[in-house]
Order: sequence, then structure tokens, then C-alpha cells
Amino acid sequence: MPIPVPISVSTAPHSQPAGKVYLVGAGTGCIAHLTMQAHDLLRQAEVLVYDALVGDDLMGLVPDYCEQILVGKRGGLPSTPQTEINQILVEQARQGRQVIRLKSGDPFIFGRSAAEIQALTEAGCNFEVVPGLSSALTAPLLVGIPLTDPVLSRCFAVATAHEPDALDWESLSQLETLVLLMAAKQLPEIIEQLLRHGRALETPIAVIRWAGQPEQQIWTGTLGNILRQTEHQPLSPAVIVIGEVVRLRPYLSGGTAQ
Amino acid sequence: MPIPVPISVSTAPHSQPAGKVYLVGAGTGCIAHLTMQAHDLLRQAEVLVYDALVGDDLMGLVPDYCEQILVGKRGGLPSTPQTEINQILVEQARQGRQVIRLKSGDPFIFGRSAAEIQALTEAGCNFEVVPGLSSALTAPLLVGIPLTDPVLSRCFAVATAHEPDALDWESLSQLETLVLLMAAKQLPEIIEQLLRHGRALETPIAVIRWAGQPEQQIWTGTLGNILRQTEHQPLSPAVIVIGEVVRLRPYLSGGTAQ
Repeated sequence: MPIPVPISVSTAPHSQPAGKVYLVGAGTGCIAHLTMQAHDLLRQAEVLVYDALVGDDLMGLVPDYCEQILVGKRGGLPSTPQTEINQILVEQARQGRQVIRLKSGDPFIFGRSAAEIQALTEAGCNFEVVPGLSSALTAPLLVGIPLTDPVLSRCFAVATAHEPDALDWESLSQLETLVLLMAAKQLPEIIEQLLRHGRALETPIAVIRWAGQPEQQIWTGTLGNILRQTEHQPLSPAVIVIGEVVRLRPYLSGGTAQ
Repeated sequence: MPIPVPISVSTAPHSQPAGKVYLVGAGTGCIAHLTMQAHDLLRQAEVLVYDALVGDDLMGLVPDYCEQILVGKRGGLPSTPQTEINQILVEQARQGRQVIRLKSGDPFIFGRSAAEIQALTEAGCNFEVVPGLSSALTAPLLVGIPLTDPVLSRCFAVATAHEPDALDWESLSQLETLVLLMAAKQLPEIIEQLLRHGRALETPIAVIRWAGQPEQQIWTGTLGNILRQTEHQPLSPAVIVIGEVVRLRPYLSGGTAQ
């Protein structure tokens, strides 16, 4: 009886590879503050969909063949409408590509990721959310301000002040430490609200601009004098810290990274 | 006139190299969530001073010659007193070594870094604070809960509940979203305080254990039923999220990293 000839198993032609969208936190924008996972994903990106605040350093990490799509405001141009961003992500994923949706800071902190995830889910696309350093916590750290302290700050609140009227200033004013993002233009209104709800004129405040970038700037003062100190100066993009912890800065910033 | 013989500049013997202490955030404990800077520092560490919650994965990054000093609670052993930790850091830095003081999460969020920095400053030692992903923000993200939402959560507060009596529950209860760290044992007292200050029994709550680790667990429910759901189960180390954003999880967790 002849020895049976082994059946040759032919490899089936590859089906279209499944695309995936990674919503990735870019952190402060400098490579040192990127997570290992975000770094690895950028190095393998086939498409990069990015916001205006994401710096050139990070964009240098993607391969030459990576398609780069800017969807944020830059150089006075209008930003892409959210529905159009959603559509770009879905289309790219459907083409079987590895898409990095890079957002400054952390994708789940004021990142408007929910709208994008909903569109991806409805379209049946794979996605993954990759955390990043939020400027709410990292900007204060980089200038030597701890948001917590065993005595001065047992809790802190983070808010955006795009629409100051929508915030519960009565409760926020009572908390030991307050961090406000995207709040530079609303600084006069924020101070007025805090003073109206019982915060003292002497309450310390810090305005941190371009945290973690070479052009980082900081102004410190009190609710009573910070407007005079920052008059006529561009403050955006800023992280604002209000509370006694600002006073710790001279003791803790000695060796902090510049 | 003879050409002057160039003066031979002899190299001065090297002085003792300056030691430095890096207070480094370990993030969730998995390498993927470490920052590039933290990763590079661990790979070059001469001394590693670490807490109990820092996982074995990260410790595997340090060179073979690196001296490892555990200063946190582990296996029922008591933790090292803070003054002794300070002394270790100062002594190691004075020997000219590169010391990594690794802390879970972010060093400036409930990390007790100020005491160590003060000791280093008084001793004239160099230091640098290196940010990490705080579990306050990253644990919710990893289970698909965004702390902010354009409608449901325009602000969130972060507190530790080691001593619930020290917190201003009246103000905290009014905020849309609340994140509590190191709060698993105080869960009954936290719920009582929130209900007493007007939060509804139906308020959603999530208890996230070992976020980002293979043994990650999550319980979701309401202020009215979470105690029954978590009865007799070990919850530490836990991050607790309270607020309507918990309800978004089914829509946002589909593709989130497990």
C-alpha cells in the first residue's frame, strides 16, 4: 500500500486586515511624557488624526508612510466639525488601517472622545482608549505645585471654564484646590465668581502656560492681583490652579524639570 | 625667539559625581503605562526605593547592579517610617548615586512627596519630580468611564477617604462626579455621607480594583445597592467613581483595553 501523500494545505488568501482606531493621550506634547504604549502605537501608525495642540516632536515619531490628518484649529484656520472627524475615523478603520487619533492630555478628560467612540461603535469598528498625562495634574507638577497635601489639600476639583455660568461656583469655591482648564480668557469672570462665593482676595493662584514645553511660563499671585500681573499677556493654553497649595511651590520646585 | 611650548593642561581628577533623586510616578504598574522618561530612568537606576503597590514588571526594568530597597507595606510587614525613607534618599544621593524613588500613580497626587523633597532640599541634594498616570484618572478610563462629559460632568473632584470626617461632604456631594482613592474600607461611611447630603439612592457608583493589572475587577451599582453587591469581597486597592458618568460605561467600554 502506498504511503499516503500528505495533503498540501494551501494558505487561504488573507482577508482584509481589521482596522482599529486608538484614541491616544498625547500628554504634555513632549516625548518624555508619552506613555510606552502611546509611543509604540505612534511608531506603527498608518494614519494619524491629530489636534492642533499636539506638538511636532510627537508627529516626528510616525513612519514616513503614515498619512497625517489635522483636524484641530491651527494658524487661524477653523477646526474640523466633530461629525466630519467621526467620519474620517470610521472610513480609515474600514480600510483596514491602524489609525491613531491623538489628543493632547488624556482622551477621557475634556477630550470629546465619547462622540468618536459612539460613531465607531455604530459602524462596528474596533477601538481602544489609551490614557495619557492630563495637563490638569501634570502642569502643576511641572512647576512644583502639588494638588494634594496632607494638611492644605485633601481634595481637588478639575473643571473647564469654557462656559463659566454652567459651573456650580458655590460648591467649587468651598473646595481646597481648584484646577481650571481652557480658562485663560475667562479669568476675570472666574475671579469674580470665586470672590462672590466667599474666597478671600489673598487666595493664591497660579497661571501655567504651555506646561512641559520649552516656552513654559508661570504667573503666581492672588485672586486680588493676578489680573494686574497678567494684563496684556497671552495666557492660552493655560492651566489655572487656585488654593493654598500654590504657596508650596518655592519649597518643591527646586529640582523640578524645567 | 623660540616658539612657546604649549602648556600641558592636565585633567583634574574627577570629583565625586553628583547624586540625584528622581521621584518617579509608576502609573498603573504596567510597563505600557509608564512614561518614556520613567522607563529610561528605571533602566539606568543605581538605587530603587519603592512602595508595596509597585509591581514586579517595573522592577524587572532596573539593571542587575541596582540596589532595591522596599519601603512600603508588603506581606503584612509594617511600612518604613517616613523619616527613615527621607534618610535613605539623602544618604544614597550623597554617595553620588542615581536614585529612583518610585511611587505608584503620580508623585504629586496623595504621594507624600513633599516630606521627601523637603529633606532632600535641606540636605542640599538634587532632585526631580517625574509625572506618572494617576489611578484617579486612569482607572476610570481603563474600564470605560470618562470623568468628564459635555452634559453629565463638567467638573470632577478627587479625594482620598482615609479620614472621611476631614472632607467637606456638603460641597463634594454637589459636584457631578467624585473620585475617591484609598476608600474601599470607608465605603459604608462614604455612602452614608453622600445620602445625608442629598445624593439620591439611585446615584451610580463604580468600584474599580487593581486597575490596569491582569487581576482588574469592577463592580457597578448605585449608592443604594453597591454594599450588597460587594459584600464579603476584598476591594482594596480600589478607585471609586460616583456620578452619572458611570452610566456611560456600556457605550464606551467596548474596545477599551482589558
